[in-house]
Amino acid sequence: MAEPPVDFHTSPDRYRHWKLALENGVAYLTMDVNEDGGLRPGYKLKLNSYDLGVDIELADAVQRLRFEHPEIGAVVIRSQRDRIFCSGANINMLGLSSHDHKVNFCKFTNETRLAIEDATEHSGQPYICSINGIAAGGGYELALACEHILLADDGSSAVSLPELPLLAVLPGTGGLTRLVDKRLVRRDHADFFCTTAEGVRGKRALDWRLVDALIPPSKLADETRRIAEEVANRSTRPKDETGIVLTQIERSIDGDTIRYSTLTVEIDRERRAARLRIMGPSSPPPADEEGIHAQGAGFWLLALARDLDDAMLHLRLNETEIGTWVLQSQGDAALVHAYDDLVAGAGTWLSHEIELYWKRTLKRLDVSSRSLIALVEPGSCFVGTLLELVLAADRSYMLNGTFEGSNLPAATIGLSLTNFGCYPMGNDLTRVRSRFLGVPGRIDELKEVLGEALDAEAADALGLVTFTPDDIDWEDEVRLAIEERAGFSPDGLIGMEASLRFAGPETMETKIFARLSAWQNWIFQRPNATGPEGALKLYGTGKQSKFDRKRA
Amino acid sequence: MAEPPVDFHTSPDRYRHWKLALENGVAYLTMDVNEDGGLRPGYKLKLNSYDLGVDIELADAVQRLRFEHPEIGAVVIRSQRDRIFCSGANINMLGLSSHDHKVNFCKFTNETRLAIEDATEHSGQPYICSINGIAAGGGYELALACEHILLADDGSSAVSLPELPLLAVLPGTGGLTRLVDKRLVRRDHADFFCTTAEGVRGKRALDWRLVDALIPPSKLADETRRIAEEVANRSTRPKDETGIVLTQIERSIDGDTIRYSTLTVEIDRERRAARLRIMGPSSPPPADEEGIHAQGAGFWLLALARDLDDAMLHLRLNETEIGTWVLQSQGDAALVHAYDDLVAGAGTWLSHEIELYWKRTLKRLDVSSRSLIALVEPGSCFVGTLLELVLAADRSYMLNGTFEGSNLPAATIGLSLTNFGCYPMGNDLTRVRSRFLGVPGRIDELKEVLGEALDAEAADALGLVTFTPDDIDWEDEVRLAIEERAGFSPDGLIGMEASLRFAGPETMETKIFARLSAWQNWIFQRPNATGPEGALKLYGTGKQSKFDRKRA
Repeated sequence: MAEPPVDFHTSPDRYRHWKLALENGVAYLTMDVNEDGGLRPGYKLKLNSYDLGVDIELADAVQRLRFEHPEIGAVVIRSQRDRIFCSGANINMLGLSSHDHKVNFCKFTNETRLAIEDATEHSGQPYICSINGIAAGGGYELALACEHILLADDGSSAVSLPELPLLAVLPGTGGLTRLVDKRLVRRDHADFFCTTAEGVRGKRALDWRLVDALIPPSKLADETRRIAEEVANRSTRPKDETGIVLTQIERSIDGDTIRYSTLTVEIDRERRAARLRIMGPSSPPPADEEGIHAQGAGFWLLALARDLDDAMLHLRLNETEIGTWVLQSQGDAALVHAYDDLVAGAGTWLSHEIELYWKRTLKRLDVSSRSLIALVEPGSCFVGTLLELVLAADRSYMLNGTFEGSNLPAATIGLSLTNFGCYPMGNDLTRVRSRFLGVPGRIDELKEVLGEALDAEAADALGLVTFTPDDIDWEDEVRLAIEERAGFSPDGLIGMEASLRFAGPETMETKIFARLSAWQNWIFQRPNATGPEGALKLYGTGKQSKFDRKRA
Repeated sequence: MAEPPVDFHTSPDRYRHWKLALENGVAYLTMDVNEDGGLRPGYKLKLNSYDLGVDIELADAVQRLRFEHPEIGAVVIRSQRDRIFCSGANINMLGLSSHDHKVNFCKFTNETRLAIEDATEHSGQPYICSINGIAAGGGYELALACEHILLADDGSSAVSLPELPLLAVLPGTGGLTRLVDKRLVRRDHADFFCTTAEGVRGKRALDWRLVDALIPPSKLADETRRIAEEVANRSTRPKDETGIVLTQIERSIDGDTIRYSTLTVEIDRERRAARLRIMGPSSPPPADEEGIHAQGAGFWLLALARDLDDAMLHLRLNETEIGTWVLQSQGDAALVHAYDDLVAGAGTWLSHEIELYWKRTLKRLDVSSRSLIALVEPGSCFVGTLLELVLAADRSYMLNGTFEGSNLPAATIGLSLTNFGCYPMGNDLTRVRSRFLGVPGRIDELKEVLGEALDAEAADALGLVTFTPDDIDWEDEVRLAIEERAGFSPDGLIGMEASLRFAGPETMETKIFARLSAWQNWIFQRPNATGPEGALKLYGTGKQSKFDRKRA
């Protein structure tokens, strides 16, 4: 690797680009990007523009507010800079980045925006955006992820999506989709808006539904505060509770092995595969919610979500040639069931946050452009929440019977209540619902075996796993599947997997990851944007791109 | 242009690749591709593989069966070749084609597959596919477009989507989407199927929902006939009626002007724009359905649909650098209303087919990767069916008042019943519904002004047009809009327009044109597929591609 690996660990005391302040139940996330704080050399983060490092801090803040601050019932996003809210993704950074880094960057920022919307909708922490100047490109897309957008009415503050006219690319963080599908902006207005580099301000921005309110600039700060405190007052957050601290994740990287407290990752470079081995809990869960709170970030189900999330982000960004993730587990299924039951049954804010975090982590898996193969072997513990990993895989293998010479009993899998509603995919259906769209009645059949240990034949009969080879065929079949994957074109696999994973209804979220990302992927690859004479390369030089004019 | 323009005109007596036979209410479309009948030199259409020319004949047959044969109530697609049904799009043709030709080819074949499904669902002509051997890639995708798939159970006949393993591209005609969203194949089965070049046959094909029935090879012909006749018997087609003949479209190309009987196209190469001027009817419609039947293909509303459809296909394939289509009309709005009322009110099979054809033609406009600008000027007749063109545009301009020195009265537009249900978009919503998702109650307001002549101010107040400049600003504003479009990156515009045009729900159709096409667009552009060492280039040489392994 030419570039140092990207590290996703941070905490508020280490933020270089954001300030986090809490007051009267409201969190203020103030953007003040350090020009010289870019993740990589070669560009300056001028005018509150951002790179992946800036967004890693934002994602950290969004996450911590949920777990560490039950007392916070509204979040304000604003800028420290005079007359500049945020000018979006840094263009020089994009011009210098490889194709896969650009796409990975967009994916992570998209996930962060969706986490903001998830906190707004499900955690009682609505986001309010207070725009005091220029909100351009990714700056306005950040606003679009918020529930409420306030714009200074000063004749110059404007919102814009200038990517197409200035850079020949699309807004990369869901802007087009959110315009027409979230804010329901009329498509001809959206067309004008997205082709007008200077954007729209004042009354037209309000009339066209681009913002929710216009505020005289002198009153913007006070009015933002008033609205945010009102929203926080109405929030269902448990104001009298205390949060838990999201301590630093423990991770050691030793050559091609990465060890977490609940997970080990082994990279097999020859087969371009990473084995993710999840370790089940080593002891029973605490008796109640208070016990979860006492364990805090050490609570197994939460620790695993954090470890898995970090492992995926690491592999996605830093191990782009490792195209297959092999999902394995080992542990006591009964203990996993016990953790599931505790969290699903508690119904308190912390359990709810753990569930929501698992939902997001599993969605991160769904949209990762890696082939996912689950292996269900003797000694594994794919039940309940962990069974979702098998269901998220493109394909799964479950050993029928035992391995010769091993005294481990045959593998089983099992369903818990969590599989029937806690973890909807981006298409808003559970993984079992998405899987069995063609089998009416299957969900009821699955509910009948809730909690049961299902052996390979039962799992196969219910359609929960793909193949169930026995000891004689196992090694060859699994090896071939992994090696075959390594031989295929990565691009083709990405497009195929993205097309097969999300049957059924579409949502704003699936549209962003499917339609919008696919188009952007293409455009990023075209010489008109990224060729030596492309708009992204020539931006700021005063030179004009010469476009290939063919409409494909 | 290096290559001769593609001509979409054909008729059964000129088919080179298909045979059309009619018997007992069933049409038999038999594929027998002429190896030497490729549209362009350099490849042979072996093994019933196809190029655009083969699909133009198929599209023509599908269309004629609807208009010319009301007595036909089922259509069988089968092969003349022994043990080969169809081996899909010709790979050498794809390897030789430019990016834009490949994408255009896929778009047209997709539209033809959707026309097959439209005939099945709305015209009482269900399609039955009888597979007597190998149905590979586009061959199986053709089957997927049919309502019922019969497969010979002979131990060798198989269905497959080998694009990814063999060619590093995706199935280009909706295959992935139809697998999981139409046939509801389980996603892990789909994953295995799409990565297995030799495909799936026999019982597994049936169990996995890839086909609907297995038939012993000796009985395939008879059983196909029996099923088709049964389907035809149940059809609602008016068996005792006679059809109308779709006569040759009259078109003259004179430099940059193309003249049809109802439409003129003028290409402005400097501005990379084509003006499509639609001419309203020159006389009132006939009194009733019998009169429509007597006029046949000369009936104005049908003639215009055919001319417009042909003009779009011509411009899409043969004028790829003309990135903007400017939509204009001239004529008597009252006459257009009269035609609309006749067709919408008749409720007979022929009127219904004309409506369905307009629906498809307007959808073809929606998915055309061209910027669409509608100009509503004095003397225009954008009412009812023609108003859909204004609503389909990315942006519209309507003159407020009159042109100085002209005695034409100010322009008006108007709604008819057709705007409220006859022409759903791919998202299954009408264009007015899609347009006003953000304005509850607007549809009711629009219904209140049904049939009224709306001037620029009224049209603007109702949100039916984008901008309403007056005589002083008109020329500059329109010119700037067209010139500005010509300056933008075509790729960026394609992605932006595709993202903004289809707010609201998604359907199999929008998924195919949005998600699947976007991914394919990207993959077609990647060196892994189309570079000098790409799989598409090396296919058949015995050489192995060297892939860039990065996962984007």
